[in-house]
Amino acid sequence: MSGNTFGQLFRVTTFGESHGPAIGGIVDGVPPGLALSEADIQKDLDRRRPGQSRFTTQRREPDRVQILSGVFEGKTTGTPIGLLIANEDARSKDYAEIRDKFRPGHADFTYLMKYGLRDYRGSGRASARETAVRVAAGVIARKVLGKGVSVRGALVQIGTKGIVRARWDWNQVSRNPFFCPDPKTAKAWETYLDAVRKKGSSIGAVVEIVASGLPAGLGAPVFDRLDADIAKALMSIPAVKGVEIGSGFIAAQLTGPENADAMRRGPKGKPRFMSNNAGGVLGGISTGQDVIARFAVKPTSSISIEQPTVTVSGKNTTVATKGRHDPCVGIRAVPIGEAMVAITLADHWLRHRGQCGR
Amino acid sequence: MSGNTFGQLFRVTTFGESHGPAIGGIVDGVPPGLALSEADIQKDLDRRRPGQSRFTTQRREPDRVQILSGVFEGKTTGTPIGLLIANEDARSKDYAEIRDKFRPGHADFTYLMKYGLRDYRGSGRASARETAVRVAAGVIARKVLGKGVSVRGALVQIGTKGIVRARWDWNQVSRNPFFCPDPKTAKAWETYLDAVRKKGSSIGAVVEIVASGLPAGLGAPVFDRLDADIAKALMSIPAVKGVEIGSGFIAAQLTGPENADAMRRGPKGKPRFMSNNAGGVLGGISTGQDVIARFAVKPTSSISIEQPTVTVSGKNTTVATKGRHDPCVGIRAVPIGEAMVAITLADHWLRHRGQCGR
Amino acid sequence: MSGNTFGQLFRVTTFGESHGPAIGGIVDGVPPGLALSEADIQKDLDRRRPGQSRFTTQRREPDRVQILSGVFEGKTTGTPIGLLIANEDARSKDYAEIRDKFRPGHADFTYLMKYGLRDYRGSGRASARETAVRVAAGVIARKVLGKGVSVRGALVQIGTKGIVRARWDWNQVSRNPFFCPDPKTAKAWETYLDAVRKKGSSIGAVVEIVASGLPAGLGAPVFDRLDADIAKALMSIPAVKGVEIGSGFIAAQLTGPENADAMRRGPKGKPRFMSNNAGGVLGGISTGQDVIARFAVKPTSSISIEQPTVTVSGKNTTVATKGRHDPCVGIRAVPIGEAMVAITLADHWLRHRGQCGR
Amino acid sequence: MSGNTFGQLFRVTTFGESHGPAIGGIVDGVPPGLALSEADIQKDLDRRRPGQSRFTTQRREPDRVQILSGVFEGKTTGTPIGLLIANEDARSKDYAEIRDKFRPGHADFTYLMKYGLRDYRGSGRASARETAVRVAAGVIARKVLGKGVSVRGALVQIGTKGIVRARWDWNQVSRNPFFCPDPKTAKAWETYLDAVRKKGSSIGAVVEIVASGLPAGLGAPVFDRLDADIAKALMSIPAVKGVEIGSGFIAAQLTGPENADAMRRGPKGKPRFMSNNAGGVLGGISTGQDVIARFAVKPTSSISIEQPTVTVSGKNTTVATKGRHDPCVGIRAVPIGEAMVAITLADHWLRHRGQCGR
Repeated sequence: MSGNTFGQLFRVTTFGESHGPAIGGIVDGVPPGLALSEADIQKDLDRRRPGQSRFTTQRREPDRVQILSGVFEGKTTGTPIGLLIANEDARSKDYAEIRDKFRPGHADFTYLMKYGLRDYRGSGRASARETAVRVAAGVIARKVLGKGVSVRGALVQIGTKGIVRARWDWNQVSRNPFFCPDPKTAKAWETYLDAVRKKGSSIGAVVEIVASGLPAGLGAPVFDRLDADIAKALMSIPAVKGVEIGSGFIAAQLTGPENADAMRRGPKGKPRFMSNNAGGVLGGISTGQDVIARFAVKPTSSISIEQPTVTVSGKNTTVATKGRHDPCVGIRAVPIGEAMVAITLADHWLRHRGQCGR
Repeated sequence: MSGNTFGQLFRVTTFGESHGPAIGGIVDGVPPGLALSEADIQKDLDRRRPGQSRFTTQRREPDRVQILSGVFEGKTTGTPIGLLIANEDARSKDYAEIRDKFRPGHADFTYLMKYGLRDYRGSGRASARETAVRVAAGVIARKVLGKGVSVRGALVQIGTKGIVRARWDWNQVSRNPFFCPDPKTAKAWETYLDAVRKKGSSIGAVVEIVASGLPAGLGAPVFDRLDADIAKALMSIPAVKGVEIGSGFIAAQLTGPENADAMRRGPKGKPRFMSNNAGGVLGGISTGQDVIARFAVKPTSSISIEQPTVTVSGKNTTVATKGRHDPCVGIRAVPIGEAMVAITLADHWLRHRGQCGR
Repeated sequence: MSGNTFGQLFRVTTFGESHGPAIGGIVDGVPPGLALSEADIQKDLDRRRPGQSRFTTQRREPDRVQILSGVFEGKTTGTPIGLLIANEDARSKDYAEIRDKFRPGHADFTYLMKYGLRDYRGSGRASARETAVRVAAGVIARKVLGKGVSVRGALVQIGTKGIVRARWDWNQVSRNPFFCPDPKTAKAWETYLDAVRKKGSSIGAVVEIVASGLPAGLGAPVFDRLDADIAKALMSIPAVKGVEIGSGFIAAQLTGPENADAMRRGPKGKPRFMSNNAGGVLGGISTGQDVIARFAVKPTSSISIEQPTVTVSGKNTTVATKGRHDPCVGIRAVPIGEAMVAITLADHWLRHRGQCGR
Repeated sequence: MSGNTFGQLFRVTTFGESHGPAIGGIVDGVPPGLALSEADIQKDLDRRRPGQSRFTTQRREPDRVQILSGVFEGKTTGTPIGLLIANEDARSKDYAEIRDKFRPGHADFTYLMKYGLRDYRGSGRASARETAVRVAAGVIARKVLGKGVSVRGALVQIGTKGIVRARWDWNQVSRNPFFCPDPKTAKAWETYLDAVRKKGSSIGAVVEIVASGLPAGLGAPVFDRLDADIAKALMSIPAVKGVEIGSGFIAAQLTGPENADAMRRGPKGKPRFMSNNAGGVLGGISTGQDVIARFAVKPTSSISIEQPTVTVSGKNTTVATKGRHDPCVGIRAVPIGEAMVAITLADHWLRHRGQCGR
């Protein structure tokens, strides 16, 4: 359990720095017989890929994924799936600046404290590039969940500007550069974010993930609760500072009657919930309603504005990150959040089947 | 990994329902030679124990812990520590009501969906009683961290009423029934909560945990980030709906310069952070600053107000929970949150020593 | 993974020393709805219990098991099953001798080297008493496998005296104090072992475990092979020095044609194996034939014959273990071996169902 | 825990079939600051590589390893090390024969039973080729153990012909095509194995692994015993049918006094063992003596002699494996056994440091 593996039965292990020859991973425990191709994976990878609008970093990474094993004649074999993504745009620019200085908000300092040395090129292992492999694994996780289950994400807030939920339209998410379900807000964000970008600054955001079509019964009562594992999954995404399920932090302000989701006799006599403050999870186990999670993404630490810091040798100085960076990393966090939730659900899907046989 | 074990090197496994003969657990991987007695554990157990004020359930549980193994002549031996807490106040009252009806906001429905049967007495495994074992394990975790590290918790919000941070005083936490660091707010909460209680209702809350004295370097870069594991640890506490680290959800509203913690040359030339929006964690690894986490606790689902629900056989009905319940479970969540953070830190403490030898 | 947990989905965690108040364990991941009672477990515990013939230690341990959780109205609930066995015959005799001296063949020295201190009473955690919990867990594992699967063990060799396989009769196993399937050999062992016992010596043995009725497909190709996990399971039993599957070490002496198990068209056109040198496992996965494992148990280290050793402070001396000990621990290892194989099979049973859905 | 990962703190996860584009793996949990290069790894890979004498398969695999991550400026960074070995000699020959028939002694049948489909090319995941990654990981494990620890292997038996231990000379191991420490026996094996090879048959073997220079204290008392983990590690090597530690199966024939390793006051007053029947492990924990393990390798199932079998559709037929195969896979199992023992020791090395801080 050295920290680069996620999941118990559906297990994702990743490796790679942004400036090595490649990044990649192994997805183990995949059920056999699932149709899987590199094209399937590429579709989601492209959604995460940078350089697709002026609101994401201009770094160009084709992010071509290669399946090295575990698939035969178009179907998963049940053996581990090796994934490889070559690093292509790792230009050998001068890293003297970040080699000698700690960038505020970056892992530069903590890596050095932990390991006593660090690969400072492009943040090494801390590079958001590592998340490409998570997205690839997320595609395989979706195959495990099957067509009946959808895991979708949307950007619901940038800085202080949130969407209007009444205008939520999933079809809009793919029609603007923000994965925004509310077109009016998307327009507003363009001007807002342009201003941030031109200042050489950055801004935080909130992402919402919704998983629909799940059966009731996924999860476990105590430590490996479905919501606890989702919290870990989302908090493990770089720059995430908060996670909430259903009514989340608002629940702290509500009374019992306000927060409880009343139940009524539904179609075919099945129980139906009249609301979903629970976010689809009760006692750590899925209710069959949508599983709803939100996470807060901090503003990119890499900005071109000078910030006070110290050198590795302890002298006061300032640092400003030159070059190509995201004004709002929250945008590209959407497909990553979807992937992490899908991976968590696939793992619990198999775990539930293992213990309960259904 | 069937869900009742937490941690990798410092491992806590719990068992028990509120109405069996006992609850308990096993703490494995404890370093040898640590002084440990049942009295050490009892102190924290008593902080969590119900029935200590009119603001917590009047259930009487002595919660006497017994150490069954792993300690010899007052010192840990390095072998697993068996913990046992007898169930004493499990009165055999009539459970017909909750046997036949799903209580909104409870795990009744999800347990039945998952397992096909359930121990309905006192919520079975979903009972908050299980958390007593976590608190006991937390005491052992504190021993691993040593006297130099403190893990303290406080209630910072009940319903819409938050504390005034300027009045924060750790010494006050033990002087009011709310673990509140702000005496003025504590007074206000008394009237506020009395009203809630008399209505037979309940209310949510927010708890803050602060770990001080930690070295930099605890954690890991990708999945097993220190903050990700803390998020799972806290979200695994019953009724928790949200977790945040440092500036948390507020970070979504900030710009890069606002959120970044500037660094300056500090005492002995060591780098010093000028703020702590990171909450003591950068890139998943501790910075050496205080690790700060907050979590939102939903209002108790067990209220004496009638709520619409369905019977197990699918008929519409209403349910009201009779008997002794917490108007604000957030209060007793404070020592539980401390325990879960201490357990997570102890695990990463040992993991870091294992990999990096320091 | 601090060493006191076995299994992934069907997980057994044990605690306890021979001289604490109790030993016990937690069995996690048990499927819900299985009929289980303390009486079911007691039956197997009694088979392992000492003091049933002059060929096992005369220590008296009622070994009464108590189920503390996870069972409701006679059925497993899917939540962890807490097991407790009180230590009753832990007489507070004088341990000065073993406190100050290392007993050859014992863990006295290695515990002190690892932990820097040790609970010397009755070998502490190294006591074979810990295996009682494994036997209890094994009963639960058998429930998971169902009535169609049998896991039986037999003693096939004591010292240099092996059984005659032509005389193998499972019905005989319960009719002699040795779990011996060959009555003639059992008779011979009586005189043989009496001599050993009267000398105050001890002798080794070989145990064979046979699991019948298994489906093909349990296991995994690479590290978690069914045979590899069985090897770990059996080697983890105190005093075991060797494990083999099917033809085992004999396979080293055979040619390809001699060792290969030819296949022919069998009933209903299903493939049938003409022999079982594989021991029911090919490529780490069960073939559907009997899974056959053997393990070698060394002679008890606790003997009343004086042996040269050193004191904890490094002086040469001799030691002889007074009191009640097994002349051949291999005998009581039979039900323990059955339990460990059943636990391993139950774990792979659930793991296979989780991944492959069958 | 889907079966393709080994170890807890020092974790090796592998992927790959013999006929995909590549095989590889991820080594996670490696301590930072260890000098590591591809050349270091290549040395051991070459020892395992086929086609180096007429006694191993003539398949030509350059087995060039590529380090994709986790190493910076010649030193490990503490982040996961990605390893890649391209498949080059995977000639697309006609696999109709093995696609339609089950090869006796092969995993063909069990894979189909488990997964419902299989990659039949070159045995897919069951291919011994997968072990190349283990050897690569073993090199990294040796770095963790340091120069003071050696893990060496030797072939001690082919078929019925064992070595003469009195002639054991480690320097000879590299001077014959058998890793044989006894030159006289090595000579005899040449004629013996030539005969086997010319018949198109194969033969079994026994490999011995000796780890020297270890501290006392590695391992754990109950399930994760050092010997139990070594047993799993070695039994997980393809074609292995038995594992023993120290006196192994012979221990079953010995009396207590014969098998116990007496202790005497040694240099600097430190305890010294007068023999090593324990094989360097007592109570699951290393004694500081050599750790000695042996394992039995069955004869290669792939032989050119016709064997009776059935087709996938259940018809009786015969099969003979054409092409290039090892007459004695036991030979190439020597470096693989070394690697698996080194990996197990490195894992326990880090685990011990994590728990006990030494």
